[in-house]
Amino acid sequence: MKAMIINIGDELLIGQVTNFNASWMAANLNNVGIDVFRINIVSDTEDEILNALKEAEAVADIILITGGLGPTNDDITKKCLCRFFNTSLVFDEETYSDIETIFKIRKYPMTTLNRMQAEILKGGEAIRNTEGTAPGLWYERNNKIFVATPGVPFEMKPMMTNYIIPMLEERMKGHVIAHKTILTQGIGESFLAEKIAGWEGALLPYMRLAYLPSPGLVRLRITARGENKMELQKQIMVQVERLGKIIPEYIFGYDDDTLEKIILNVFLKSKKTLSTAESCTGGAIAQRITSVPGSSSYFKGSVIAYANQIKEQMLGVSTETLQTFGAVSEETVKEMAQNVRKILKTDYAIAVSGIAGPEGGSEHKPVGLVYIAIADDTKVFVQKFYFGENRLVTIEKAVITSLNMLRKICIN
Amino acid sequence: MKAMIINIGDELLIGQVTNFNASWMAANLNNVGIDVFRINIVSDTEDEILNALKEAEAVADIILITGGLGPTNDDITKKCLCRFFNTSLVFDEETYSDIETIFKIRKYPMTTLNRMQAEILKGGEAIRNTEGTAPGLWYERNNKIFVATPGVPFEMKPMMTNYIIPMLEERMKGHVIAHKTILTQGIGESFLAEKIAGWEGALLPYMRLAYLPSPGLVRLRITARGENKMELQKQIMVQVERLGKIIPEYIFGYDDDTLEKIILNVFLKSKKTLSTAESCTGGAIAQRITSVPGSSSYFKGSVIAYANQIKEQMLGVSTETLQTFGAVSEETVKEMAQNVRKILKTDYAIAVSGIAGPEGGSEHKPVGLVYIAIADDTKVFVQKFYFGENRLVTIEKAVITSLNMLRKICIN
Repeated sequence: MKAMIINIGDELLIGQVTNFNASWMAANLNNVGIDVFRINIVSDTEDEILNALKEAEAVADIILITGGLGPTNDDITKKCLCRFFNTSLVFDEETYSDIETIFKIRKYPMTTLNRMQAEILKGGEAIRNTEGTAPGLWYERNNKIFVATPGVPFEMKPMMTNYIIPMLEERMKGHVIAHKTILTQGIGESFLAEKIAGWEGALLPYMRLAYLPSPGLVRLRITARGENKMELQKQIMVQVERLGKIIPEYIFGYDDDTLEKIILNVFLKSKKTLSTAESCTGGAIAQRITSVPGSSSYFKGSVIAYANQIKEQMLGVSTETLQTFGAVSEETVKEMAQNVRKILKTDYAIAVSGIAGPEGGSEHKPVGLVYIAIADDTKVFVQKFYFGENRLVTIEKAVITSLNMLRKICIN
Repeated sequence: MKAMIINIGDELLIGQVTNFNASWMAANLNNVGIDVFRINIVSDTEDEILNALKEAEAVADIILITGGLGPTNDDITKKCLCRFFNTSLVFDEETYSDIETIFKIRKYPMTTLNRMQAEILKGGEAIRNTEGTAPGLWYERNNKIFVATPGVPFEMKPMMTNYIIPMLEERMKGHVIAHKTILTQGIGESFLAEKIAGWEGALLPYMRLAYLPSPGLVRLRITARGENKMELQKQIMVQVERLGKIIPEYIFGYDDDTLEKIILNVFLKSKKTLSTAESCTGGAIAQRITSVPGSSSYFKGSVIAYANQIKEQMLGVSTETLQTFGAVSEETVKEMAQNVRKILKTDYAIAVSGIAGPEGGSEHKPVGLVYIAIADDTKVFVQKFYFGENRLVTIEKAVITSLNMLRKICIN
């Protein structure tokens, strides 16, 4: 079964909103073996929506539509679907009672617009929306399945997970697909490609390899297609094990692993604690760590010492060190790591100081220069990096690199 | 001139990578009056790429292609373009010397794969890539312009900004488009729609309104089409002024304004300083503030007090307050704000304490409960919120809401 995603919304076409929905939907469909072969993003005008529906009906088995189901005047998806299927809207009592419940919980008065949201396609089904007032729509014609959900991610996601994907899985037959992603850190795409060229050349004919670089990381994704998922997964694992012997120092995880989740698990097991002292990353490391539920069990806190005064006063970096070596130096970042560890009474500490730019660089200390230190109870380990001239890329690389340094030290 | 974007890459179709490129490109094309009417995301197989090129050539004047220009085996865009245009590759000396320069600066050895990147389409032109080794490709056929760039964002963006967009602007004739986005905070989409229904109904016939909600915000975008950009902009401003009188308390900015940029400007003007004390946001507020270049001029630092011990020790929250009222309480967050302001010697301070979840909630203090405090030299202002059950949404809403509270206090 081949699926196509249609995301409706001018906001996507004028670039005001990033299309996170498409990637999330594609990932979750892919997990159950449904192949998304095309994603179309179209304007919220009747012509473009009808055109996209026609195109999709001709080539896809499953058509997933997001956007334009809201209560306001610019939401025309329902109207377009009615016209496309030559059907009308009917009031759905069950949906209405769901909407009423939401308004009761939120203690908001209900509007006429909200009442109209209980209308669904005649001949189709409503998909329950537990997070909002617009129901999803399910409609079938000539063996093709059309599903429309709101574009709001935290409404769309539970609808997909709890209803749409299980329903589609039931219909699935035939070919399967298996993926495995290997996560690497600390080596660029070209160098990695040269290092693993022999391994890549020897992959089985039904396997494909993709290089997916992002700041600080390169992900390698193996895709295999066949008829037996278990067998595909087994063959992929043989390749993954071979790769693990070629580049063990660069691999930190697999698939949806993230450094922050891996570190959480390492610390949960060791029952150790962590603090950070951040300068140029400005809280980005702490933010990444605390984005994971459960992080409060090991992460105690951080001092964001953006100003030098705070580095002295709150982190006890000596005036002499700052004057002699500067805020961006091995000596300063070492003191930051050792001191924050002691002050916040944790087992480990990360400290970062650098020049994120665009201002503040000099000949000897250019924009992109970053020092990272990891301290434990016996030692402090410092590394120096040049992360380039882009402020946000430098911050991201500093976050990724410091977390991977911590991971390596903690598992050794 | 109608443009279509083709993003090539399995990573986009299996959802491993979010398509930030499309939104960035669309926004920047839109700014110069080039209307992106469709975005197609296709797999990196020859069939799909050729198919997408054929489709695009039939409907668009400008076709922008990203992805698949890298040095590795899964990068087949160049080969597909050769086949599509029935042309071959030629070695480009100028491009080769650019690549050599990059390798010299980075002090890396050059590989055969990198040398091959200097090949471009015969009959076309190279687009200089200042950030990486893959040149962009420009090719014209039957009055249609095809442009291919790497998918790596920080390579693609300067190529678009410095070369492609200026070239396209020169070719532009005819219809123009104007946008204005009004940024609101503190009111949900439906309530906003009811409040401004009269205003919306009275918009001019060539104007359209879109509601763009995201956690903590609703953006309202007016789009107008016509022949005279100045006139369109003037008419839009008339509408914006009328709206400003209806909902002044909710509007905080326009277009690409962000709260962090607005606050930077407010503080640059007032020469005041800021610190934060964060619990449940875990550094997300400091991270947002410091993502903007120049923030070091007013932002001194932050104490991320994830553990209660840190709230006492580093922020001087009294043991009695914590024991009597709990860490998530008006009293605690008040002390956090007042104390961090004094300790870090700043004019203003933001403090946040809440339950981001999924664990840690109780009947009286459910997941999503957040207290935000803003302190200045004479007073401290506290508000209580329920931000819902999603951890990342709660953190995002707390960031947005606290920055807007600070903005309101600073401009009054």
